[in-house]
Amino acid sequence: MRHDGRTADMIRPVTIETDYLIHPEGSVLISVGNTKVICTATIEERVPHFLRGSGKGWVTAEYSMLPRATGQRTQREASKGKIGGRTMEIQRLIGRALRAVINLEALGERTIWIDCDVIQADGGTRTASITGAFVAMAMAAAKLHVEKGLAQFPISDFLAATSVGKTSEGELILDLDYVEDSAAAVDMNVVMTGGGAFVELQGTGEESTFTRDEMNGLVSLAEEGLKQLFTIQKEALGSVAQLINPVGGVE
Amino acid sequence: MRHDGRTADMIRPVTIETDYLIHPEGSVLISVGNTKVICTATIEERVPHFLRGSGKGWVTAEYSMLPRATGQRTQREASKGKIGGRTMEIQRLIGRALRAVINLEALGERTIWIDCDVIQADGGTRTASITGAFVAMAMAAAKLHVEKGLAQFPISDFLAATSVGKTSEGELILDLDYVEDSAAAVDMNVVMTGGGAFVELQGTGEESTFTRDEMNGLVSLAEEGLKQLFTIQKEALGSVAQLINPVGGVE
Amino acid sequence: MRHDGRTADMIRPVTIETDYLIHPEGSVLISVGNTKVICTATIEERVPHFLRGSGKGWVTAEYSMLPRATGQRTQREASKGKIGGRTMEIQRLIGRALRAVINLEALGERTIWIDCDVIQADGGTRTASITGAFVAMAMAAAKLHVEKGLAQFPISDFLAATSVGKTSEGELILDLDYVEDSAAAVDMNVVMTGGGAFVELQGTGEESTFTRDEMNGLVSLAEEGLKQLFTIQKEALGSVAQLINPVGGVE
Amino acid sequence: MRHDGRTADMIRPVTIETDYLIHPEGSVLISVGNTKVICTATIEERVPHFLRGSGKGWVTAEYSMLPRATGQRTQREASKGKIGGRTMEIQRLIGRALRAVINLEALGERTIWIDCDVIQADGGTRTASITGAFVAMAMAAAKLHVEKGLAQFPISDFLAATSVGKTSEGELILDLDYVEDSAAAVDMNVVMTGGGAFVELQGTGEESTFTRDEMNGLVSLAEEGLKQLFTIQKEALGSVAQLINPVGGVE
Amino acid sequence: MRHDGRTADMIRPVTIETDYLIHPEGSVLISVGNTKVICTATIEERVPHFLRGSGKGWVTAEYSMLPRATGQRTQREASKGKIGGRTMEIQRLIGRALRAVINLEALGERTIWIDCDVIQADGGTRTASITGAFVAMAMAAAKLHVEKGLAQFPISDFLAATSVGKTSEGELILDLDYVEDSAAAVDMNVVMTGGGAFVELQGTGEESTFTRDEMNGLVSLAEEGLKQLFTIQKEALGSVAQLINPVGGVE
Amino acid sequence: MRHDGRTADMIRPVTIETDYLIHPEGSVLISVGNTKVICTATIEERVPHFLRGSGKGWVTAEYSMLPRATGQRTQREASKGKIGGRTMEIQRLIGRALRAVINLEALGERTIWIDCDVIQADGGTRTASITGAFVAMAMAAAKLHVEKGLAQFPISDFLAATSVGKTSEGELILDLDYVEDSAAAVDMNVVMTGGGAFVELQGTGEESTFTRDEMNGLVSLAEEGLKQLFTIQKEALGSVAQLINPVGGVE
Repeated sequence: MRHDGRTADMIRPVTIETDYLIHPEGSVLISVGNTKVICTATIEERVPHFLRGSGKGWVTAEYSMLPRATGQRTQREASKGKIGGRTMEIQRLIGRALRAVINLEALGERTIWIDCDVIQADGGTRTASITGAFVAMAMAAAKLHVEKGLAQFPISDFLAATSVGKTSEGELILDLDYVEDSAAAVDMNVVMTGGGAFVELQGTGEESTFTRDEMNGLVSLAEEGLKQLFTIQKEALGSVAQLINPVGGVE
Repeated sequence: MRHDGRTADMIRPVTIETDYLIHPEGSVLISVGNTKVICTATIEERVPHFLRGSGKGWVTAEYSMLPRATGQRTQREASKGKIGGRTMEIQRLIGRALRAVINLEALGERTIWIDCDVIQADGGTRTASITGAFVAMAMAAAKLHVEKGLAQFPISDFLAATSVGKTSEGELILDLDYVEDSAAAVDMNVVMTGGGAFVELQGTGEESTFTRDEMNGLVSLAEEGLKQLFTIQKEALGSVAQLINPVGGVE
Repeated sequence: MRHDGRTADMIRPVTIETDYLIHPEGSVLISVGNTKVICTATIEERVPHFLRGSGKGWVTAEYSMLPRATGQRTQREASKGKIGGRTMEIQRLIGRALRAVINLEALGERTIWIDCDVIQADGGTRTASITGAFVAMAMAAAKLHVEKGLAQFPISDFLAATSVGKTSEGELILDLDYVEDSAAAVDMNVVMTGGGAFVELQGTGEESTFTRDEMNGLVSLAEEGLKQLFTIQKEALGSVAQLINPVGGVE
Repeated sequence: MRHDGRTADMIRPVTIETDYLIHPEGSVLISVGNTKVICTATIEERVPHFLRGSGKGWVTAEYSMLPRATGQRTQREASKGKIGGRTMEIQRLIGRALRAVINLEALGERTIWIDCDVIQADGGTRTASITGAFVAMAMAAAKLHVEKGLAQFPISDFLAATSVGKTSEGELILDLDYVEDSAAAVDMNVVMTGGGAFVELQGTGEESTFTRDEMNGLVSLAEEGLKQLFTIQKEALGSVAQLINPVGGVE
Repeated sequence: MRHDGRTADMIRPVTIETDYLIHPEGSVLISVGNTKVICTATIEERVPHFLRGSGKGWVTAEYSMLPRATGQRTQREASKGKIGGRTMEIQRLIGRALRAVINLEALGERTIWIDCDVIQADGGTRTASITGAFVAMAMAAAKLHVEKGLAQFPISDFLAATSVGKTSEGELILDLDYVEDSAAAVDMNVVMTGGGAFVELQGTGEESTFTRDEMNGLVSLAEEGLKQLFTIQKEALGSVAQLINPVGGVE
Repeated sequence: MRHDGRTADMIRPVTIETDYLIHPEGSVLISVGNTKVICTATIEERVPHFLRGSGKGWVTAEYSMLPRATGQRTQREASKGKIGGRTMEIQRLIGRALRAVINLEALGERTIWIDCDVIQADGGTRTASITGAFVAMAMAAAKLHVEKGLAQFPISDFLAATSVGKTSEGELILDLDYVEDSAAAVDMNVVMTGGGAFVELQGTGEESTFTRDEMNGLVSLAEEGLKQLFTIQKEALGSVAQLINPVGGVE
């Protein structure tokens, strides 16, 4: 039994509130336990320099935390005048993950800007960001699909992320909160498509290591959690979920 | 009649949700019409260099907007690597305003960090920030008062802010939303204490000017709005409101 | 009687030396007591991005202090690598104030760059900057008017600024020097046109407040000082003063 | 057969030249095919703020590329004034990886600074950096061990890294060069200890995905390459290799 | 005959106005033809980190130009967020030059900050800065000498600087103005002590070269100009000039 | 006899390894004693803004040191977020020096980027950079000459640099290493063409001075060293040396 009463293979309660803000093309507030992230998707009718004239679009992401998303106040990166390594790592991960399920040709020469702003942090902010950002992106894509009459819906599959870890006692657990994450010997983030294929798999020993068997155990645990996340995303998306292929993969 | 059905002397619907986040010592979500700001107050047990050993505390504020708080996506200041002039102006205003009702000796050598993060913008973000930040600060001060057994509650009066303006047709209106603010000839922000004294008064002609009579008309309009805001703050604060003196001023 | 022998309603001696530098289109050295500011106006034959093709011009301002303009040496903002909040606030104020008396259509697609460099500071640097910058701008506009044969002189009225304040004893005084400013309970900057209309009015309690009556008393005091400044500007401008309308307002 | 004549399970020729520079406590030039990295280890007799008084040391890493390490000249990060996301990601990875085999208590309150400067790039610069940096760190630790008479040698095991990938035709290959890396559908970096435990495992689909079987296939391939790298490290280290435990793991 | 009527070996008219500002310990306005520089000297009662406890002082310099010191407006370095290479080169030169005639032990653990702000530029701003800064520094040192009762006056000799150059026609000329400097094939700055010894000698071919004979001709020309500058400095300093040794050298 | 056994007029052993890297158009590793610099030359088919349409090319240089090129680790300028004054001074010197022997019209509208990265420092890094960069530039120019069929080889003469100095005992010495440079009273860098003309001559007293005779003595010493460097450059360049005019000057 874990400190919050969950068994090793349970995820925290997850809610995804769509159309959370009035301005963005897509926006959600995702809560994974006490972790809360506002994810928005913005459609911009142009692409970065390296794609101009290519007929292909782009997806890019930015990530930030409010200063008091955390127990101790964190200094703003705007005040420091630069973005830290952790933030860079996370926003590169979010963008790369989402691009795996976007058909950039179908999107056309447009950029989807994803913004993930953590308003409350309790572990797993990067995986919550990916899971929520996917829904915001799908909402924005659906709006674009209608308004611009795209030939093809540009999102090819569902996408979600979760974390798994090995405790200092060697137990494998799913969806770590902050307390668990701080004490974990190994931490692994898994990004998977609705069809069950891996997009990113990042396992890290924190002054510790893991075996091949542990690797496979962690991945199995993640798969269980991700199936539940796909169901929650599907419900949040409502009719938009029908546009995504192959929908069969997320049943 | 204004574009949203209000008369010239009406404020927008205002709600203040306290204890909005789990980590900060004080936190609120304030909504003024569609403008929504998360305001948090953090108590830090030290003061800036220039106050060390003085026995006095400090209040400082930071302000930011999520990229999609606005109709068009705004680039993050962290990405630009510097804080813009508008942000600086606003966060200096918030800090200065709050310091007018804080007894810095009673606070002791502590800093109260105020963070105002606009998650949705529809005009009046700086005045909503001040009105909400006051409540977050009072909540944090009440917690501090109990935990540290302060000799005196460090907040001496209520404080709120609103905007007034002159339309291009010369009409004076209260609590401008974004559409009204963009078209206004004159814009004035008024920060007032519960006792009715002015703390800040910033009237600005936008390629336009105003007379002494218009100045007095705008100030009167602001006073009407501010009285309503004090009542809403008092309700949001519940029993904490009793600690603030002179409470008589806000009836 | 004030510490320098002035009565409450007296301004300090003011001189405006025009054509102070050989390179700029307009330049002055303004002295307000011991406060000395070099103000220059530069005409650039292009406008910021947001005005291209609009047929309208722009006025923008920058403000700085030499390190030893002050009693203690101040670190250069170039050395710090960023511009501080106070500087930003002041340069935004100067630009906004000047734009109130410029006819941007008459200016055409040009930018007037205003540079205010304080070489000696003794209180009131921002108001001296506005008063001096107006003269430099008018000189540059007159040169432009002749060289480019503008259909209409682009400056519609005189513009000057002064400060007023409330001492800790509650007395209202005009044109505060550094010693008075440091000790003041309330500080107000007033920017007015030659025709007597307000452009900016910024009253600030420094951990203090002010009443409606005090507000009106301060504004009246400022109006007295501003009338004298208009006369001094008019003399400094010589024949250029004739180009400004309505000249009647500044008699 | 690959474009350079290797079979799928072959690494490129690897050489590690120790004592490459005269100043650092440890330094190597590692060549992995045409990829060449200067790795240095510096011992500093103090630790970051968060470890002072803890009795524990720290290992941190910085990574950079010469402008013409690459086919096209890359702008220097010093000229841009900031470190890019890719660099941050890599230097965080190098530091984290090395900390897995360092006994920070045995190191004592010291920091080992690792600098990896790529002088020529042809794919796999981050894994070459880790493999080379381990040797530089061991050399520096050996010198420290003698000079300071440490009670225990602070490095507990060998550590090396390699990359594996899936080609667009679905073939799994070991130690990708630049041409292969640019075209790969999936790219995985594996950091392993001499004892065969994983420290980091980062698999990334580049607008593509991978299955569980492919994950296991890639990991097996990496293990083969890493065994060869441990042998090369051992030879490069000479007698210093004897100090590392458990040496049995690297036979 | 040169474009402004001078012969090859003539300097421009030079004036040095001392006590130009009220706040600094030493301040001058130096004019060399149309080049005008405000030079100030500030005494700070501490030294940089590397000199603490050494009993020795330090001299450091900063240099800047007002945006409209030049014919075209130059962007402020504070706005750019960084100091350019030319500025760095000049301020390092000024500091180094002044340190050659300061007895840092006699100064004691104090820093003299030199600020050179060019308010009007017409060639030779760096040499005018050195010549003026020397006078400001001597004034500040004289004040310090009296107030702190130094055992020994810390300035050991006079110091001035001038420029010489070779025109595209091969003529050697003294004290180049902007027009001459822009067209020169070779430019040389010479910093010399009152005793006739060289402190800095920087000869630069601008896409051109110079012979040994030309080098000696340029140096001779500079010596002639420098003798005149020492006389002007001596007059500006009045009785302070008596404190400097060996005064014999500047007759 | 000097600390390393050289007489006053001896240079250190110099080697220049050409084609040191596979990617750049020209690259060398130059060693001057223990000072080692990688110099690369990159041809870019465009010019800076101020030369567009002029038919002329440009040469620009950047300089950096690896953190452990030095005895103590130096913080990276990329980590600091800005380039220091010393670096700026050196890279401006390198670019200016090389431009003296380039025929920019013959080069055409192209930029040659020179990168000098010091991998090991023992005094004289700037002069070694110039000497090595010349060879890299000549190699790149030869490649360009063939590939683009330039009408004229764009390099008009050899170019090399060395340092000379005066010890604290007053002795004049050639090619100072770090130990000598740190203790020198006067330091002079001399950049000369193969034809014997000076391009740059920078003599600096380090809290010290030098006479006219010493100046001439130092320059003579430098000329001796430079003749040897031209021979070494010529050997390193092989057949490319034939393209440079006037080759007679370097016999």
